[in-house]
Amino acid sequence: MKQYAEMSIPELTGIHDELLKEFSQYRKADRKLNMTRGVPSDEQLSLCNEMLTCLSADDFTAADGTDCRNYGGIDGIPEIKKIFADILDITPDEVIVGGNSSLALMFDNVAVNMSHGVRDGVPWQLQGKVKFLCPSPGYDRHFTICKYFHIEMIPIAIGQDGPDMDIIESMVAADPLIKGIWCVPKFSNPTGIVYSDETVRRFARLKPAADDFRLYWDNAYAIHDLGETQIKIPNIIPLCEESGNPNMPLVFTSFSKVSFAGSALACMASSKSNCDYIRQRLITQTIGPDKINQLRHVRFFKDVAGIMAHMKKHAVILRDKFNLVNDTLQRELGGLGIAEWTNPAGGYFVSFDALEGCAKRVVALCSEAGVALTPAGATYPYGNDPQDRNIRIAPTCPPPAELGEALQIFSVAVKLASAEKILAGKQNR
Amino acid sequence: MKQYAEMSIPELTGIHDELLKEFSQYRKADRKLNMTRGVPSDEQLSLCNEMLTCLSADDFTAADGTDCRNYGGIDGIPEIKKIFADILDITPDEVIVGGNSSLALMFDNVAVNMSHGVRDGVPWQLQGKVKFLCPSPGYDRHFTICKYFHIEMIPIAIGQDGPDMDIIESMVAADPLIKGIWCVPKFSNPTGIVYSDETVRRFARLKPAADDFRLYWDNAYAIHDLGETQIKIPNIIPLCEESGNPNMPLVFTSFSKVSFAGSALACMASSKSNCDYIRQRLITQTIGPDKINQLRHVRFFKDVAGIMAHMKKHAVILRDKFNLVNDTLQRELGGLGIAEWTNPAGGYFVSFDALEGCAKRVVALCSEAGVALTPAGATYPYGNDPQDRNIRIAPTCPPPAELGEALQIFSVAVKLASAEKILAGKQNR
Repeated sequence: MKQYAEMSIPELTGIHDELLKEFSQYRKADRKLNMTRGVPSDEQLSLCNEMLTCLSADDFTAADGTDCRNYGGIDGIPEIKKIFADILDITPDEVIVGGNSSLALMFDNVAVNMSHGVRDGVPWQLQGKVKFLCPSPGYDRHFTICKYFHIEMIPIAIGQDGPDMDIIESMVAADPLIKGIWCVPKFSNPTGIVYSDETVRRFARLKPAADDFRLYWDNAYAIHDLGETQIKIPNIIPLCEESGNPNMPLVFTSFSKVSFAGSALACMASSKSNCDYIRQRLITQTIGPDKINQLRHVRFFKDVAGIMAHMKKHAVILRDKFNLVNDTLQRELGGLGIAEWTNPAGGYFVSFDALEGCAKRVVALCSEAGVALTPAGATYPYGNDPQDRNIRIAPTCPPPAELGEALQIFSVAVKLASAEKILAGKQNR
Repeated sequence: MKQYAEMSIPELTGIHDELLKEFSQYRKADRKLNMTRGVPSDEQLSLCNEMLTCLSADDFTAADGTDCRNYGGIDGIPEIKKIFADILDITPDEVIVGGNSSLALMFDNVAVNMSHGVRDGVPWQLQGKVKFLCPSPGYDRHFTICKYFHIEMIPIAIGQDGPDMDIIESMVAADPLIKGIWCVPKFSNPTGIVYSDETVRRFARLKPAADDFRLYWDNAYAIHDLGETQIKIPNIIPLCEESGNPNMPLVFTSFSKVSFAGSALACMASSKSNCDYIRQRLITQTIGPDKINQLRHVRFFKDVAGIMAHMKKHAVILRDKFNLVNDTLQRELGGLGIAEWTNPAGGYFVSFDALEGCAKRVVALCSEAGVALTPAGATYPYGNDPQDRNIRIAPTCPPPAELGEALQIFSVAVKLASAEKILAGKQNR
């Protein structure tokens, strides 16, 4: 297989014209395919349908006697705190179970630190132009929170072992206005990489200039492995404690991709001391989370073993889709020297890198052919991918046949955009 | 019946000593009675137990085709927006259905106005010492939100027709730092009064000096009548529009005292323009509310008629308790000139005024006898009841027998504290 860049102008022009012809057929068809959303499919959601009926009309009492129907309780019934604690390998008093959205928990933590400071420290908003480090490509909704609060975002490169720790260590040690960093340590969104043990340990050992620096550790895919055995990363909470940073990590996770995406449970975890502090605040802020829905999860899953068994059912469904992505891209684009992509062992995304300057063009072409992709650049702070290369592929939602069709069109769009780019380069020489 | 104040010292001393003897018996018994919490009783909650089972395993699709299990949707499925719109007599695009806590919606609205300003105006926190008017006695959790955000609270007297509108009109017209007011327009917490039509209309016609002044209109008891016919108050949203204040009202209500207190639905309502603005923000903040729980409410109640029929069942249970309060207080304290209390037509509280300087003493005495009451002063900003008179009685939760016993002890505590107070006054003359 000859790489596009090594072809002569006439040779590549021939290929380009063929691609253009093929793509004009795609443009004419009235397709509506969607690879934008990292959401579970109908088949995955249906794994939990019995949760809709798992409570009986007299089943509303938690293990400690709490009437789950009534007011009361701010951080979760004991059974559900235990399940989250077991998943995160910590104790229940290091856990706060919130509503249905871990995004809301993260937003709220940033909001409070901006307005009231970290544990009664000086509010971030009164300290000048505070900054977050943003390993990129990363999760667009993390960046949107920063944007909302006018927090300056500094992109940090991310590799196979995680973000560039040399840079992070030196930056947080030097700049007291750096107040946080967004991390998705396992199956990072979108690259799917898993932080190495050494990366996690270096995070725990950070020596930030700001004593109100916080790790926003979004462990969204803690148990979302595609393979048979669960990949383990070191436990950030005890590691931070050992390093003298007990209150630095704010860990988030949820059951949004375990049970029902919109009706699940979100959780934050940190030192007991941090959690006690936050529990006090929550009393001002809310009547507490929906305890009946917590009980529903307890009845359906029973315990952490039940959760893990359930995740294997998700894996069976998702594995085929991720394989389809990798196989299609390999078949269509392999050896052409125009693309790289990840083949993750878990999570919800494939991260795709086109030739420099081609990502927006690929997304635009796909849009013309009725294939919706996440906007190019969305995975970078301010929507600005400096190389215009990265595209996030979300293969989980479409049924396999639609996914295959979308990937086929996507691949042709990549080839077409690449040929355009290389030809333009050759002709400008 | 002779009033305490008209008795001679020996006469009142005799009564005092008898009361003391009676009360010492109460002190010795090991009671645990609770009149603090404005929460539904087990009997009320049980009216909804079938809601736990009203969905079948294949019932998760909203009328517009939305899969309620998945992500998506930020302000409620159409059916539930319609129900809230019907209750508030507005249109569904003036409604945002949130999570399970209207308190959280109020907190969030204050938080955002502090940090980001009202509709992109200057953030309140950058405008100096902003203030809220606080009709008092009022709801302690409103005041706690202000305290959390360091918003200065100005108590405003509240009478039979609502808060003192002369004062409110002149204050908001004069002071651009007054940014909001907490109102519970129907069955006000704790006095139970209903704002008169004229009061509501005067609110709508306010001419605040601050163009970012907002009415926090907590219509928590919109449909919580004890009587057979529903008391109607004028509709603040269209009235404000007519008065040229279309974006001034922020209306809150919930089903916390309709279905399950901890697992219900909260709602805010305002102009469509305000709601559109807030919907945009919510996308940054959350994955959206629990749509399955919304569907559960739709299936159980069906429509506004179903809700209203259900509220009549609550009323039957609550009426007896409110009558027990009024009858006991009347029997024990009537004609003694030492107390006044409300006999509301709805809501969750009886507001009790002891003699000046006696509220804390009554609460302390009750505590000694194992009867928990809301701390005296809690119904005033900063927990400071300047006359130390007001006590909030919450009769809804205890079973009738316990409620009767608690009220008996409470009445003796009031008599004892009053006798102490009057005797001290007479002896100091």
